[in-house]
Amino acid sequence: MEQKRTDVNELGEFGLIDHLTKENPIQNNSTIMGVGDDAAVIDNGEMVTVVSTDMLVEGIHFDLMYAPLKHLGYKAIVVNLSDIYAMNATPKQVTVSLALSNRFSVEALEEIYAGIYTACKRYGVDLIGGDTTSSPKGLYISVTAIGQAKKERLAYRNTAKVGDLLCITGNLGAAYLGLQLLEREKQIYLSNPGVQPDLENQDYLVGRQLKPEARKDVIETFKKVGLVPTAMIDVSDGLASEVFHICKQSKVGAIIEESGIPLHPDTEMMALKFKLDPATCALSGGEDYELLFTIDPSDIEKIKYLPDIYIMGEIVPKEDGIKLHTKGGNIHALKAQGWRHFGEE
Amino acid sequence: MEQKRTDVNELGEFGLIDHLTKENPIQNNSTIMGVGDDAAVIDNGEMVTVVSTDMLVEGIHFDLMYAPLKHLGYKAIVVNLSDIYAMNATPKQVTVSLALSNRFSVEALEEIYAGIYTACKRYGVDLIGGDTTSSPKGLYISVTAIGQAKKERLAYRNTAKVGDLLCITGNLGAAYLGLQLLEREKQIYLSNPGVQPDLENQDYLVGRQLKPEARKDVIETFKKVGLVPTAMIDVSDGLASEVFHICKQSKVGAIIEESGIPLHPDTEMMALKFKLDPATCALSGGEDYELLFTIDPSDIEKIKYLPDIYIMGEIVPKEDGIKLHTKGGNIHALKAQGWRHFGEE
Repeated sequence: MEQKRTDVNELGEFGLIDHLTKENPIQNNSTIMGVGDDAAVIDNGEMVTVVSTDMLVEGIHFDLMYAPLKHLGYKAIVVNLSDIYAMNATPKQVTVSLALSNRFSVEALEEIYAGIYTACKRYGVDLIGGDTTSSPKGLYISVTAIGQAKKERLAYRNTAKVGDLLCITGNLGAAYLGLQLLEREKQIYLSNPGVQPDLENQDYLVGRQLKPEARKDVIETFKKVGLVPTAMIDVSDGLASEVFHICKQSKVGAIIEESGIPLHPDTEMMALKFKLDPATCALSGGEDYELLFTIDPSDIEKIKYLPDIYIMGEIVPKEDGIKLHTKGGNIHALKAQGWRHFGEE
Repeated sequence: MEQKRTDVNELGEFGLIDHLTKENPIQNNSTIMGVGDDAAVIDNGEMVTVVSTDMLVEGIHFDLMYAPLKHLGYKAIVVNLSDIYAMNATPKQVTVSLALSNRFSVEALEEIYAGIYTACKRYGVDLIGGDTTSSPKGLYISVTAIGQAKKERLAYRNTAKVGDLLCITGNLGAAYLGLQLLEREKQIYLSNPGVQPDLENQDYLVGRQLKPEARKDVIETFKKVGLVPTAMIDVSDGLASEVFHICKQSKVGAIIEESGIPLHPDTEMMALKFKLDPATCALSGGEDYELLFTIDPSDIEKIKYLPDIYIMGEIVPKEDGIKLHTKGGNIHALKAQGWRHFGEE
């Protein structure tokens, strides 16, 4: 169709977004933040509206061989709410658009919706609209989440400052290992359908993959202790990738302590079984939906005794780069990953 | 996967939405209107936020054999803005999510975005976010439009009253005939690729299909003349289907004058060539993106001399049903259509 043909994989996901949105003039005063953060921000006077959207595609983001439809509906909502929490805002509404082939029955749709409603109830958000249409092949789920915040409580990606402490909630790498387990059993099943799947009682890892939760509790704690992070992002593509986003957009560097990366015992055990480095699972795995944030050092007392928040590094000048201080005492440059290749047709 | 298997086609699109959203409790005071209108409505104090979302699927909603990518990007935005205008609100922002296979190059994506930006500029809206991901096959475009209105100026679907006049903007059926022309030439081309397409200089009809416009001008006129329709909906699925929506949700009936349905001369000519009834093209064709609305009879002076607004019927009690008064003098029950079957996989 065109003379020149550049493959989308040449630019990578973020390069592609930059490329396509580099000339995107803003026309409305109410648009405070457009493309480039976890969510967009719209001015409504005292309060702002925060909007985030995501598309989940069968065969790319989920595999119905091991993802139950109800969990899928739940996860589709949660990953979008996570983006709203990552702005330090409260999600209030969602819209859900589905494209699905006639392989899916009404009962299958009911399962998806059961998961959607369960997530809506758990997080106190309302399903306010959407679109249900047919797809020639496969299942596509597009969710838009809408939240609210006071302007002065918003946490963007581009406002981390040199000297800030880099913090993380929860633990990382578990969802990635859950996926490895599910993939392993799928391959075994495909080559020998008689064999029973052996998930090794790894409910924690599998649960982190199939039914992640967003950190509503952390946002509520921030409010209670009077903390506004200087910058924040949710961990969807892996810790390294998210650190790069904050550093690039804030025009700073960072140093991360490998020993400061929180890992669940099951994550460490399973990583070893798979002959993977646990820290690499955390840095490049993704889908943890934990919150990575920076705070002014003067705020340290506010988080110091919170059980599920870990200090794992510091923001440094841009010239110092983005470095990892390993447990072995080496300091080397961090690599960002978290890019899924576009499928072959 | 399930014991019972109900095909989605058994319920139809609207039956399906009703079925899946029948138990959807609203948890937030800010949710004024959820599922069931052109757009959802969120309270933000004096102003409300209006949100609408749509998914366009290759092979279902568009065919890249004749839809240029730039037009497709343009249309994806316009059809969503049309839903915001149908609430008598002003669209301000859009988010766009794309799933596409590696069949699409960066240059192809640039074309889609060029159309998106052209629509954004023309309608004064900002692209504020989205998601670009891979698809195993085909192109999926999901757009969410966000608008603003004063609460007292909103026009819902469920507020038409007996005695109101039923009005329509522009003319109907042209987009449907444009599609028939494009489909005819596609079939000829497929059976004999040497033949040049013959669109018979039908720029108007083809343009209405490939590059529709939303009625921003009408909403601005309403504001200028101080009119708030008692109910309003945009014509995406065909006039008959939209009349049914207003009547069902407002618990009223309607009588439509066939002679009052505005038709473009090209529509009448081409309908005859295709041996179709022009009024049927208007009633069942769809994709016109005109506005169907009702007004209190006391407001008639406000619209009487507006060139592009036509009175085409009246709202009657529910018991009187939904009727068409034909040019031949017969009165018969109207049939609603506008349902696309779910694709075979």
